[in-house]
Amino acid sequence: MSETLPPGRIEAFAAIVGARNALTGAADIAPFSVEPRGLYCRPASLVLRPGSVAEVSAILKLASQTRTPIIPQGGNTGLVGGQVPATGGEIILSLSRLNAVRALDPVSNTMVAEAGVVLQAARDAADAADRLFPLALGSQGSCQIGGNLSSNAGGTQVLAYGNARELCLGLEVVLPTGEVLDDLRRLAKDNTGYDLKNLFVGAEGTLGIITAAVLKMFPKPKGKAVAWVGLKTPADALALFNRARAIAGGALTGFELMQRRALEFALAYMPELRDPLPDTWPWYVLIDISSGRSQEDARELAEIILAGGIEDGFAGNAAIAASLAQERAFWRLREDISEAQRPAGGSIKHDISVPVEAIPEFIERAAPVVESIVPGARVVCFGHMGDGNLHYNVSQPVGADKQAYLAKWGEMNHAIHGLVIEMHGSISAEHGIGQLKREELAQTAPPVALELMRRIKAAFDPAGIMNPGKVI
Amino acid sequence: MSETLPPGRIEAFAAIVGARNALTGAADIAPFSVEPRGLYCRPASLVLRPGSVAEVSAILKLASQTRTPIIPQGGNTGLVGGQVPATGGEIILSLSRLNAVRALDPVSNTMVAEAGVVLQAARDAADAADRLFPLALGSQGSCQIGGNLSSNAGGTQVLAYGNARELCLGLEVVLPTGEVLDDLRRLAKDNTGYDLKNLFVGAEGTLGIITAAVLKMFPKPKGKAVAWVGLKTPADALALFNRARAIAGGALTGFELMQRRALEFALAYMPELRDPLPDTWPWYVLIDISSGRSQEDARELAEIILAGGIEDGFAGNAAIAASLAQERAFWRLREDISEAQRPAGGSIKHDISVPVEAIPEFIERAAPVVESIVPGARVVCFGHMGDGNLHYNVSQPVGADKQAYLAKWGEMNHAIHGLVIEMHGSISAEHGIGQLKREELAQTAPPVALELMRRIKAAFDPAGIMNPGKVI
Repeated sequence: MSETLPPGRIEAFAAIVGARNALTGAADIAPFSVEPRGLYCRPASLVLRPGSVAEVSAILKLASQTRTPIIPQGGNTGLVGGQVPATGGEIILSLSRLNAVRALDPVSNTMVAEAGVVLQAARDAADAADRLFPLALGSQGSCQIGGNLSSNAGGTQVLAYGNARELCLGLEVVLPTGEVLDDLRRLAKDNTGYDLKNLFVGAEGTLGIITAAVLKMFPKPKGKAVAWVGLKTPADALALFNRARAIAGGALTGFELMQRRALEFALAYMPELRDPLPDTWPWYVLIDISSGRSQEDARELAEIILAGGIEDGFAGNAAIAASLAQERAFWRLREDISEAQRPAGGSIKHDISVPVEAIPEFIERAAPVVESIVPGARVVCFGHMGDGNLHYNVSQPVGADKQAYLAKWGEMNHAIHGLVIEMHGSISAEHGIGQLKREELAQTAPPVALELMRRIKAAFDPAGIMNPGKVI
Repeated sequence: MSETLPPGRIEAFAAIVGARNALTGAADIAPFSVEPRGLYCRPASLVLRPGSVAEVSAILKLASQTRTPIIPQGGNTGLVGGQVPATGGEIILSLSRLNAVRALDPVSNTMVAEAGVVLQAARDAADAADRLFPLALGSQGSCQIGGNLSSNAGGTQVLAYGNARELCLGLEVVLPTGEVLDDLRRLAKDNTGYDLKNLFVGAEGTLGIITAAVLKMFPKPKGKAVAWVGLKTPADALALFNRARAIAGGALTGFELMQRRALEFALAYMPELRDPLPDTWPWYVLIDISSGRSQEDARELAEIILAGGIEDGFAGNAAIAASLAQERAFWRLREDISEAQRPAGGSIKHDISVPVEAIPEFIERAAPVVESIVPGARVVCFGHMGDGNLHYNVSQPVGADKQAYLAKWGEMNHAIHGLVIEMHGSISAEHGIGQLKREELAQTAPPVALELMRRIKAAFDPAGIMNPGKVI
């Protein structure tokens, strides 16, 4: 259902950014139109790469006047199709050239980064000033700050530092009319009117385009301890989590859960890595501790937590990384699970959350649901247990036909999400709605909430040009 | 400019809640119409005390149909006139009878509290389950959860635990039409559409009425250390703060700054308390440390911070409280400064924030501004330094006429707020806008932001019945 722009429209937009930054050839446009999982591949009619906020503003002004749909795009790493065309024929506005760190202040622990700053570059800029920017994702080498904020990205450090939302103090946003909202505040406390920042964060580019943000930085930890723990059940993992949080508080910077099968997939995928424990357990957690005092203090905290857990019987066996290399190896076993599922064939994904204490119940109830839809399908359950967030993925049965299996995607999602809703959970804990879950959101969100979201959308984007066909 | 309701209107509203819960007599209404500072005293025409969400819904439905203005009110402790009539004749809807803790789950660390639960009662409920609900305010014995959320309350524990906004996971809200938004989610992560929760939090009852909330609880600290430090300058206090936060991280649960004059006022007001230090310093900070490990650990942390601060010369002298009684005494010296200003006569208040690193500059630049407006006026500067938030109050000159001094309130505010805006700060860090700062918000906020706020207001409350004359 691709639509084409009327004659002269492409030229009018291209004139704003100059011919070099207006891509019209099919081969040039292709990398911007296809997203990482290959679920959506409708071509854009044009890719614009503005080099300034003024150019972004001029593009949106013209788009509002001509009712031309605009898709903002960062690093194109989103997993729900939010950053690529929904109908075909839309204009993609790439933020990549707005990639300056405008300011960095280690005393106030703030950084003003433009939307196109790659996450790893933001992390590196903080690091160079002896600070930590804690947002950490698998795609951090290519995803961008604007996309991180628009999708309210999560990742592996949320437990102590929060989602992208909590890491942002203020925004600069170009509204659909082209007006610029300069709200780059750097204040910890500010009660002056409605909270506009949190509306744009997580709106997936449907209300305006974030062009810059004030980001929080933190003092770098003086010490780290990474532990790998084998356990019998998710209930034991929950008990260990509660113990760890009570003792370590904000020093508990990661608590990741993995099923044995996830570890096996990771070990098969990365033969250079070894199982951290000599014995076999059905479940594992990775515990990450950060201390502002010292390396010894971090290790002592980890030891207190693990000793208590083993004594009380809910931790089976445990290893604390003895070197930086071993810390990295433990983390790679966790981080590379996503990639490690590929050799096992088709994988149906879920990115769900439930209240943390309901994780064991969810895992127990979800297994028969999976089995009822595709007998023999292999659950690969892992995720950010401390946030109640599981990537509950399901690999095809051994030897099954990949395409036939993937054809079950919708049915599997529907069943698992039904359980999630029943348990008062979220069908998208950290990846957002985009195109992938738009219909499901409409079916599962409270009608009153949907109505309010529609009113907000109409109030902010009356011409309906911002990323149409996404979210609502 | 009091307005009266048309005949029969009072009876129609009263019928919803029953005669006992519809107050119409002037003496019954008076305590609801006057706020703590006595700045506003226009009478309401009626006070309704609904006993259920259904009754709140019926009231708002009728109000929308008849375009009758409604003011939601909690404990009536707000400091900006947000909870009392702006024109006179409005209906006050008191949430006090909706005071159930509907659920409390120590495993997930969540509590579902109705709007009328008194903050102290919420704290006590958490405490009884061996958990901490960390919101702590001077008015906690009478303020209520609904008001805390509607004004995004701050207080003394924001540094580690956040404002009311960060302590809330989900809401139940009655919209102006009477529809009920059930968004009582208990999830740490949920990226399913626009962030409605954060719109209602801090909206001061202008978009709908919060009737219940999911609140976060925390494990109780196992140990506490409270230190009192004398310093030469605010710049030294800033250096000490940065040191403390780097070492203690989330264990730094309070960092409060006080000028010597504030301590003197407090000591005069509470003769049973003593100056914690034998020598005199122009500035003081109170440091509050919480440990999840032990009392010894908290004390060790405090000692590390203070030893380093004294060695590097930015802490002058320091005392760590040796008993629970002494901890309380240190905190009372800080908490009772507000009350302790009364005997000194008229006091002109400011509740401002600037980026934390700009606190010393603000203090230096504000003093001559005060002196230029009222020579001899006595600055009483104190506040939540770690949040960049100062209560920059100014007592009248010794022997001056109180009323003549207070007549300078607007001029003094205008000048100090001008400096705050110039320094990219906030004219209301934690108290909100209400009636008191509505004009100033209109003059100082970016016009684009105001326009978006107006559109949100129109989208949520097209009949304009929710708390008119407040915020925008």
